[in-house]
Amino acid sequence: MNYDPNNIFARILRSELPCIKVSETAHTLAFMDVMPQSDGHVLVIPREAASTIHDVSDAALAECMREVKRVAAAVRDALQPDGMLIAQFNGEAAGQTVPHIHFHIIPRWHDAPLKQHARVRADDATLEAQAERIRGALGH
Amino acid sequence: MNYDPNNIFARILRSELPCIKVSETAHTLAFMDVMPQSDGHVLVIPREAASTIHDVSDAALAECMREVKRVAAAVRDALQPDGMLIAQFNGEAAGQTVPHIHFHIIPRWHDAPLKQHARVRADDATLEAQAERIRGALGH
Repeated sequence: MNYDPNNIFARILRSELPCIKVSETAHTLAFMDVMPQSDGHVLVIPREAASTIHDVSDAALAECMREVKRVAAAVRDALQPDGMLIAQFNGEAAGQTVPHIHFHIIPRWHDAPLKQHARVRADDATLEAQAERIRGALGH
Repeated sequence: MNYDPNNIFARILRSELPCIKVSETAHTLAFMDVMPQSDGHVLVIPREAASTIHDVSDAALAECMREVKRVAAAVRDALQPDGMLIAQFNGEAAGQTVPHIHFHIIPRWHDAPLKQHARVRADDATLEAQAERIRGALGH
């Protein structure tokens, strides 16, 4: 897949668009999904320009997963879900909606079915309150 | 989560149970999911004893993802799906059925909805034929 440098995550990485930030490292950015499938739904992306798992470098992939693990632990500590889904979609047929590789961290609760992917915009104040709790658990 | 050394993936790693192998490295094993959600559904697991993403070491996680990327490319080349879902479930509430961390590589086609997770046992000959094509694409 040719990389589109004007996709929304590329623009967030360049600070041309806002995001509700959870954490950032030299190689990654983590922020709240604005159309969450559950409370506490966070995305982790590499700064590297890559569309899918087929394009990303091994090094950027390893950095992403290190950060996915670290943020997932903070989401667990902050929100106490019953489980945690990690998902990464490649191609429209798999549900990919933004052509910059991203990892979904989706907390699960026994009594709460997953909401549909990329459908309903959440309230910014709610997302910011969740991000604040997750950042607190990260020690930021 | 305390690690159960008698879970079925631990037993597969010790060769106490069979699997339809796709590839193995010093740190990982990849094999066909016997209750696949689509054709070509492969699992990648670390040899490290870890139940979830919260327990696995950064090193084992990086080795797994390097292998997920390599096997996903082979699945793509062998089966030509329209997309590819990478998923990893932590805890029963998230759909985890075996308490050894595992990564799902699930090819997606536009016209084929996902089958339910861990429900219907596939035919061994069909799985072996798919594994053979994927191994071929890996250059094994």
